[in-house]
Amino acid sequence: MLDAFRSDLPQAPDQWTPAPEYSFVGGHNDAASVPFAGLAEALTNAMRREGQKLAFYNLGGSPLGYEPLRKFVIGEIGARAGIAGDPDNVLIVSGSLQALDLVCDAMLSPGDIVLIEQATYGGMISRLQGRGVAYRGIELDSGGIDLDHLRQVLTELIAAGTPPRLLYTIPTVQNPTGSVMPLERRRELLDLAREFGLPIFEDECYADLTWGCERPPSLRALDGDGGQVIYCGSFSKSLAPALRVGYLVADAPVIRQLLALKTDAGTGSLEQLALAEYCPSNFTDHVERLIEVLKEKSAAMVDAVRSEFGTDIVVEAPMGGIYVWLTFPDGTDTGSFAAAAMDAGIQFTPGAGWSSDPDWGKRRLRLCFGAPSVEAIRSGVKRLAEVYRTSL
Amino acid sequence: MLDAFRSDLPQAPDQWTPAPEYSFVGGHNDAASVPFAGLAEALTNAMRREGQKLAFYNLGGSPLGYEPLRKFVIGEIGARAGIAGDPDNVLIVSGSLQALDLVCDAMLSPGDIVLIEQATYGGMISRLQGRGVAYRGIELDSGGIDLDHLRQVLTELIAAGTPPRLLYTIPTVQNPTGSVMPLERRRELLDLAREFGLPIFEDECYADLTWGCERPPSLRALDGDGGQVIYCGSFSKSLAPALRVGYLVADAPVIRQLLALKTDAGTGSLEQLALAEYCPSNFTDHVERLIEVLKEKSAAMVDAVRSEFGTDIVVEAPMGGIYVWLTFPDGTDTGSFAAAAMDAGIQFTPGAGWSSDPDWGKRRLRLCFGAPSVEAIRSGVKRLAEVYRTSL
Repeated sequence: MLDAFRSDLPQAPDQWTPAPEYSFVGGHNDAASVPFAGLAEALTNAMRREGQKLAFYNLGGSPLGYEPLRKFVIGEIGARAGIAGDPDNVLIVSGSLQALDLVCDAMLSPGDIVLIEQATYGGMISRLQGRGVAYRGIELDSGGIDLDHLRQVLTELIAAGTPPRLLYTIPTVQNPTGSVMPLERRRELLDLAREFGLPIFEDECYADLTWGCERPPSLRALDGDGGQVIYCGSFSKSLAPALRVGYLVADAPVIRQLLALKTDAGTGSLEQLALAEYCPSNFTDHVERLIEVLKEKSAAMVDAVRSEFGTDIVVEAPMGGIYVWLTFPDGTDTGSFAAAAMDAGIQFTPGAGWSSDPDWGKRRLRLCFGAPSVEAIRSGVKRLAEVYRTSL
Repeated sequence: MLDAFRSDLPQAPDQWTPAPEYSFVGGHNDAASVPFAGLAEALTNAMRREGQKLAFYNLGGSPLGYEPLRKFVIGEIGARAGIAGDPDNVLIVSGSLQALDLVCDAMLSPGDIVLIEQATYGGMISRLQGRGVAYRGIELDSGGIDLDHLRQVLTELIAAGTPPRLLYTIPTVQNPTGSVMPLERRRELLDLAREFGLPIFEDECYADLTWGCERPPSLRALDGDGGQVIYCGSFSKSLAPALRVGYLVADAPVIRQLLALKTDAGTGSLEQLALAEYCPSNFTDHVERLIEVLKEKSAAMVDAVRSEFGTDIVVEAPMGGIYVWLTFPDGTDTGSFAAAAMDAGIQFTPGAGWSSDPDWGKRRLRLCFGAPSVEAIRSGVKRLAEVYRTSL
């Protein structure tokens, strides 16, 4: 059968093996914080009321998603992001990865150019590569996108007759850097986007886990009725990654057009029912508790990295989320470091796959502190530094 | 924003409106049969044991899907289809539509030709169209694919230098005709496929709801280790369509290659947990009960159609599932009939979109009897026949 498959497919993964002793990869989260009993109880209640509707695609309702969940997203989650609107501005998706797929499918053709942040979500980079879409990285500083560089790249691309189709940005708790773009720069970014007619796809998957500063309004919120921004978010980071529920927020006609590309007959109803029932009374408290746990893990991770690696690395304390981003001295190859670390039972994400320019990313890496305990963070980073020193 | 979208997108749907009084469309099922309390209880039990694993993508396990569910699929569901194997032969997918996507993505390029049944699942036809893949319909009789026609088309396409890449077939409870291919023809179909090197994609989404005959072994089962068949199925029809869980069954290397194309970070875990916990003790009994309900609705539908439409139509009692397929006299246009019916509060699926040749399908239509009550079937078909007579 395999000889009947296309010849240009991504390589098949090896047989799956369990995570090593120290896993600092992926978007995994704090297991003890998962409100599984609350979710189960919520689902049981919702099923008692709505269970028969499972006999119908989309529970017999709108294909945009279960309406009480869309109300919660545009209401309470929207309010956190400063967004107003109504449920028709929301499309529930099967995880924010589907949001990325839908926006890419709607806007991009092979040969197009997209602007991304110089360090960004690897799942977006692989999606662009898979579609034959080119990308240019915009430089980042501690406040996110460098607007001078953005203007320079835009001017250059337009002069070359190849204007970019889209800017993909993670302004709040940037992945992987953990930065938050300040309000004033958000305003300037929007002005610039309008000046150049540049659509923005704003990914706020981690924004509910902001703690390092007051969370600024999203670009979508600041844009008002400007129609410049498509917004996405997720319950994966705030509640549990194994729940595959995210959301797109945009103008209603844009949402309807994205829905036309969503050909999966609806996002899972058990997960939508559980969230819609659980969240209105519990989301805020849950996120507050989770943030306290993650803050402690983040501090432990930053401390461990600084004390174990010393001046060999640059790291900034993240403003939220579950990651730190480490920069090593020139010449370091975190790809080969990763292989050596894996032999020692430690897994991390090398920077090349999360960078617009793999050469720039080659001396960087990402560590996730969401899942491991504070103790595992300390001992894992200690062992990682030993591997680093001996593998040099 | 919409002016930044691609110009070749499918048309956006209108604002969603609730189903009309009589809805005979879609794969909806019998609401009273949904075992929602059992599913909720199963999920609560599973969450008590596994809830913390929600903090990890794929519950910390294999990206092929929750292992107890894969065991159930290859064990009990596999046994129903005559299939043997182990959990590594199974990829859990987010509804069987994702199975279709993955197989199409793996095997098809624009300009390719695929063989389908002359009446077949509209969701497959639209997927082929969306990928720029051409298709040829193979004639059906009451036992499914006409093998003489299949040989003729294969010979013709190969002579033209355009061999088809794939045969997509629904041998058991064909959608929309409701037929079941007899065992002997299955063997001959496999022989023919091997003779011509034609890969088969076997869709058995309705096969667990077979009642008109003993269920024959699937093509996948008959193929043994031949590697000629990729198989898919779903819990949507046997349990509830709003659950988005299906499965692919194939040789392990094929499954791993399909997994490489599944970039959704896993299928929803609440639904996998609920199914894995519920099914081992309950699936067989549930399906037996559901079949009794559907048999009664099927009989009511066939009776109503025959008595209300008389000799104007041809209908065969389905061998299972939730559909009947009606053939009207030459010259009938079920597309315009559908518009008139909709005005009278009745929705059905016109045949053109479910046929390889829309002209052939134009005088055909599909009625789903899964959701409406026996009473609604009778009164809805009566009213539908009135619309038919007055709209002629």
